Parts: sequence; C-alpha cells; structure tokens
Amino acid sequence: MLYTSDSIEQVVDCFASLPSIGRKTAQRMTYFLLKQDQEYIDNFSSSLQKLKKNVKLCSCCNNYTEVDPCPICTGKNRDKSTICVVEEPNDVMAIEKTGEYHGLYHVLHGLISPLNNVSPQDIKITELIARLGDISEVIFALNADIEGEITTQYISKLIKPLDIKITRLARGIPMSGELEFTDEATISRALSSRISI
Amino acid sequence: MLYTSDSIEQVVDCFASLPSIGRKTAQRMTYFLLKQDQEYIDNFSSSLQKLKKNVKLCSCCNNYTEVDPCPICTGKNRDKSTICVVEEPNDVMAIEKTGEYHGLYHVLHGLISPLNNVSPQDIKITELIARLGDISEVIFALNADIEGEITTQYISKLIKPLDIKITRLARGIPMSGELEFTDEATISRALSSRISI
Repeated sequence: MLYTSDSIEQVVDCFASLPSIGRKTAQRMTYFLLKQDQEYIDNFSSSLQKLKKNVKLCSCCNNYTEVDPCPICTGKNRDKSTICVVEEPNDVMAIEKTGEYHGLYHVLHGLISPLNNVSPQDIKITELIARLGDISEVIFALNADIEGEITTQYISKLIKPLDIKITRLARGIPMSGELEFTDEATISRALSSRISI
Repeated sequence: MLYTSDSIEQVVDCFASLPSIGRKTAQRMTYFLLKQDQEYIDNFSSSLQKLKKNVKLCSCCNNYTEVDPCPICTGKNRDKSTICVVEEPNDVMAIEKTGEYHGLYHVLHGLISPLNNVSPQDIKITELIARLGDISEVIFALNADIEGEITTQYISKLIKPLDIKITRLARGIPMSGELEFTDEATISRALSSRISI
C-alpha cells in the first residue's frame, strides 16, 4: 500500500493536477502541508475559494479583476489612447513588470488556431474592435509563433480601415542572449530588422 | 500594478509558500485554477481541509494514517517481527514502492542533529524502544549523511543489550549509476563493502 490515508492521496491528486507538477513534487507539498498548523490550511483553502468567487473578467479589457472595470482601465495615470493586445492575463503582468508601458490592455483569452479549432469568434476580437473609438495606437504583444502571427494578421486587417497606428513588439536577439545559441529563425529576423546606430 | 486582484495575489502567495515552488510557477498554477470550474476548486479546498482533519499519527509506528493503528501495523500479511526505522512518512512510501519489504515501520519524525539543536528526546526514539518486545530485527533506513549516521549509532547502542539483530541499508553504487559520475565517498564505501560473486 502506497498511501496509508485517502486524504493524503486526494491532496496529492489535486496538486498533481496542476501544470508542471509531477506526483513526487505533489507528495512533497502534501507532506509539507501536514506539518503546517490549522491556520495555514484554513488560509490556503479559503484563498482558493475566494479566488473563484471574487475574480471576474473586466468588462472592458477582459483582464482578471475584482472591481469592474479593472484598476488599469480606470487608472488615472494610464494613457487611454493606446491598447496593448495580449493573449492571456499573465501576459499583462509580464508587461506591467517592465514598468515601461502605461497604456491600456486587451486580453484575447486565446489565439486563432485552425489546428486546435479556435476560430476568431472564440476569442475576444469583437470586444476589441468595439473599444477602438478613441484609440490612436494598437500594439500587438502576442507570442512569436504561428498562432500569434495569424491572430495579429487577422485583427490588423480589421483595424486597418479605422486609420489607427498598428504596431507589434520587435523581434530579435533577446537581451544578454548569445548569438551562438540563438536559433536561425531569430537571427534572420534580427538581421532583416536591423537598425542603424 | 502587478496583480489586479488581491485574491489572485493571495493564492500566488499560498502556492509560493510550498517547497520548491517559485513565484512564477505559483502564478501559472493560480491562472490555471482560474480556468477551472467551481467543482474543481471545491474539491481542492475541501481536500486540504480533510487532510488536516482526518490524518493523524499512528500510535504505534507514527506514520500518517486515518485509522489508528495504521493499515500497515494491523496488516495481516506483514511480518510483525521486523521493524524498519525511517526518518519521515514519505520514506515509508519510498520503501513500500519497491514491494520488497513486508515488515513494520517506525517513523522517527526527524534525525538527531546537534547542529540544528535536535536531540534524541525530540524524535520518536523512546516510542521505538517501547515496541521492541517481540521484534527480532531492526533495519535502519535513514539518510546516508551525518545526521543519519549519528541517529543510527545512537539508537543501535540502546538496542544492543536487547539481543536483537540490527541491520542497515547497504551503501554502494546506485543501480544504473555510472562509476565515472559517482562521488569518491560512495566509491570507497562500495569498495570496502565489496561482496564476492
């Protein structure tokens, strides 16, 4: 018998269902929890419940939020004329971390993917188009893969007639990336997008 | 602003407090949870609560269990004359997985460690000695480090007068371990413990 308790096995199952967590790590987490006090467990389980209860999508940008519209959409210091289009809420966080961007966001919640049967109607494109009234620039910050390219192209075509500046993140050698270990596709893109210094 | 929701931040904090989980992984887990249905969340949080409520230490072997004594201590097919001494409950699982051991266990819940101020009174040694009435062999399966050695030596000395066979796990080259990449201490131990074939 591997586990002498169903309760232990259930928690191991729960942790192991999370992304990138194998059963060994899930076991270690469970045994760690068993050594914590009741307060820790209560806090953990009530935080999980609150997550689902309190967090909803912002009716404007579709980012996760507890107040609607979200603090970024209503932020006094945000540039309301620029929208950065991202795939998922965690991409918003990745960009916010840089501290370099002060405009608004729009979360698509997916990318167009013919292979995975995700069509334009399945992601928040209509909602984006509806927001473009006072917008002067749309920045695409989608993954640099086929789905990201298709989605960028598709939405750009819809926006083109509206006379809005359309940009996307630069592609090239990552900072502190070594040329020797950079893949060919990235080097050729960096070469064709070279800038004068 | 990094998180647009306190509830998200709280769950990220909870996951990040688990062993070997950094904030990035904790974030990924939290965003994964947000995409799951209410049933998944309910199951997760109630499993956590049940863990602490249902799981206790077996009054006999000190392993985690829901029924006391635990299923191993009361198991009909277990050899009740052998006790395997381990540090933590997960060590029991590691040994059970082999399917090679059919005796009883005793979980010490720690190892003697002068450096970390863990003295013999802090771990379940008295409880072990009290169980040795009908025992014919005690197997030490503790970590192969200084704390493991000290603890094995300390308990062995206590058991010696009782005329019980005392053994410990063999040390040597791990299975499918390459000699070239095995550390010197392990090689010298394997050399001095060599067996005739």
